[in-house]
Amino acid sequence: MAERNRRLVLAERPTGMVDEQTVRMEEVDAPEPGPGEALARVRYLSIDPTIRTWMDDAPGYLPPIAIDEVVRSGGIVEVVRSNSEKYKPGDLLFGFTGWQEYVVASEATGYQALPDGVAPMLALSLFGITGMTAYFGLIDVGKVKEGDVVVVSGAAGATGSTVGQIAKIKGAAKVIGIAGGPKKCAGIVDELGFDEAIDYKADDVGARLREAAPDGIDLFFDNVGGEILDACLAQLALRGRVVLCGAISGYNDRGTAKGPANYANLIIKRGRMEGFLILDYFDRLDEGRAEVAGWLAEGKIKSSEHIVEGLENAPEALNLLFTGGNTGKVIVQV
Amino acid sequence: MAERNRRLVLAERPTGMVDEQTVRMEEVDAPEPGPGEALARVRYLSIDPTIRTWMDDAPGYLPPIAIDEVVRSGGIVEVVRSNSEKYKPGDLLFGFTGWQEYVVASEATGYQALPDGVAPMLALSLFGITGMTAYFGLIDVGKVKEGDVVVVSGAAGATGSTVGQIAKIKGAAKVIGIAGGPKKCAGIVDELGFDEAIDYKADDVGARLREAAPDGIDLFFDNVGGEILDACLAQLALRGRVVLCGAISGYNDRGTAKGPANYANLIIKRGRMEGFLILDYFDRLDEGRAEVAGWLAEGKIKSSEHIVEGLENAPEALNLLFTGGNTGKVIVQV
Repeated sequence: MAERNRRLVLAERPTGMVDEQTVRMEEVDAPEPGPGEALARVRYLSIDPTIRTWMDDAPGYLPPIAIDEVVRSGGIVEVVRSNSEKYKPGDLLFGFTGWQEYVVASEATGYQALPDGVAPMLALSLFGITGMTAYFGLIDVGKVKEGDVVVVSGAAGATGSTVGQIAKIKGAAKVIGIAGGPKKCAGIVDELGFDEAIDYKADDVGARLREAAPDGIDLFFDNVGGEILDACLAQLALRGRVVLCGAISGYNDRGTAKGPANYANLIIKRGRMEGFLILDYFDRLDEGRAEVAGWLAEGKIKSSEHIVEGLENAPEALNLLFTGGNTGKVIVQV
Repeated sequence: MAERNRRLVLAERPTGMVDEQTVRMEEVDAPEPGPGEALARVRYLSIDPTIRTWMDDAPGYLPPIAIDEVVRSGGIVEVVRSNSEKYKPGDLLFGFTGWQEYVVASEATGYQALPDGVAPMLALSLFGITGMTAYFGLIDVGKVKEGDVVVVSGAAGATGSTVGQIAKIKGAAKVIGIAGGPKKCAGIVDELGFDEAIDYKADDVGARLREAAPDGIDLFFDNVGGEILDACLAQLALRGRVVLCGAISGYNDRGTAKGPANYANLIIKRGRMEGFLILDYFDRLDEGRAEVAGWLAEGKIKSSEHIVEGLENAPEALNLLFTGGNTGKVIVQV
């Protein structure tokens, strides 16, 4: 009774956005679980900007996805049948599923149960890589503190929207979000409690930062890079901190991306710019999830998801992150 | 008996190197010392890259030098006559003298005695701003530790040559200096004990870094910026640190300087890039000087000075820092 497994493999490396040349749909027999393993059906895929970086043949924190390999992706699976006492049919697990319908799940391949009582959508957003990236980046790397003026780029995105909310909870004096378009800008202020929004598509970002943060930026959480990073460096406060989480503006044009010419302001302002990966915090996720669960219960933090239906639409879902077509966490319902 | 004071004032802001239009020699009466003050003759001027940044009309850590103001500079003075019990004729003091022959020295204007038993040249080099910048930048900001692979740019310069020597003393596994020309490169290896030298004028810096630091750079102490910074960022080791001390490659072409496109490697490598100013360590200079004095007594560290004779040659002395014409600390003997 071998199930058939539809899967998207990397057909060729993209030069910009992912398109129909980039991935190829295949149908093969689903793998057979061995002793101690389970066969699981992929239910949801976590669509993250970093997936685009894995498609390049460039050194990274993980090896590039090989040509003809299933596109790497986090996701949530439901156990279908099991040869393990640990897994029962219906169990929901999180792991690196890839863009496909079936996987063999085992402890050896890193599948974990969802946090207690957390629904699948929240397990991928607020309690997943996205929310935990916001949490540890802001608190552990950025050392956010009461009275800080905090700026977040990609502020309507999954990570950025969480960063801004946590900054307010942690006592930031002012939280300024940079996002694209009036709808997103209104959303982060009206629905998520940001103090101000800058529309990078319409505003002069540098001029607006000088108005909104006249005494400088204490903490900039950057998901975007490029000109926005440069404008924030120019407006850094004394001992300002820049947390480098992503550089999404450069992921589609590697090799031609410009560096931040204002980096030398880090000298004048005795500033610090530091990168991090959530991978390094995997042994501390429980700590972050516990605090976020408290905030959620008290109604202090919100999560939003942008659902795309169908495995075949995963490439389009990934592109949303680069066109700014999403608000909140992009999830593919397989 | 008013002395006459020759002084160099800023006539107009330079656009590149300092030239005969930039400064103007004036002769005026020397100022008269008031109660508690002393008249002092300037003996030596400390020529530092940062002087060039003060000539621009741009925000910095100190206000720009005003037009018609004496060019700001550190230096050593000898007391000529004194209205203070604290100062006796012949006393040597350190302070912000400016490019001139006479100053009024007082505690209020920040003049300090030279460290005990330290000759004037060493007071400006190893025990001065230069050496202390190397010391605190490497130890306090860079957190140099045993086994580190350390790279220094501007390695034959006053600060860079000290950084490399301290890194060896502190147990770095390998110290690589980047300097211009075979003579400087030979000097830092043969005379100062660097393990390797890269000649940025002749070598492919990126390729040589990959050879010399195949497992990556743990600590990069940057005096230069520009393409050299970019090449070092590309070769950063996991949790590598970049200490931003200066960006001399950009001081003469502000506005057109390129940013480091490889900054995003700070994410992949969880790296940290941090700027600092020695100003913030003025209350800890004794600590640094005591340790350096010990190394000097044990013959573990060397200082070299590049002396330029005559106040009128101060602009040319400053330019040496940008043409790479100096080895070691540039000092003008007034």
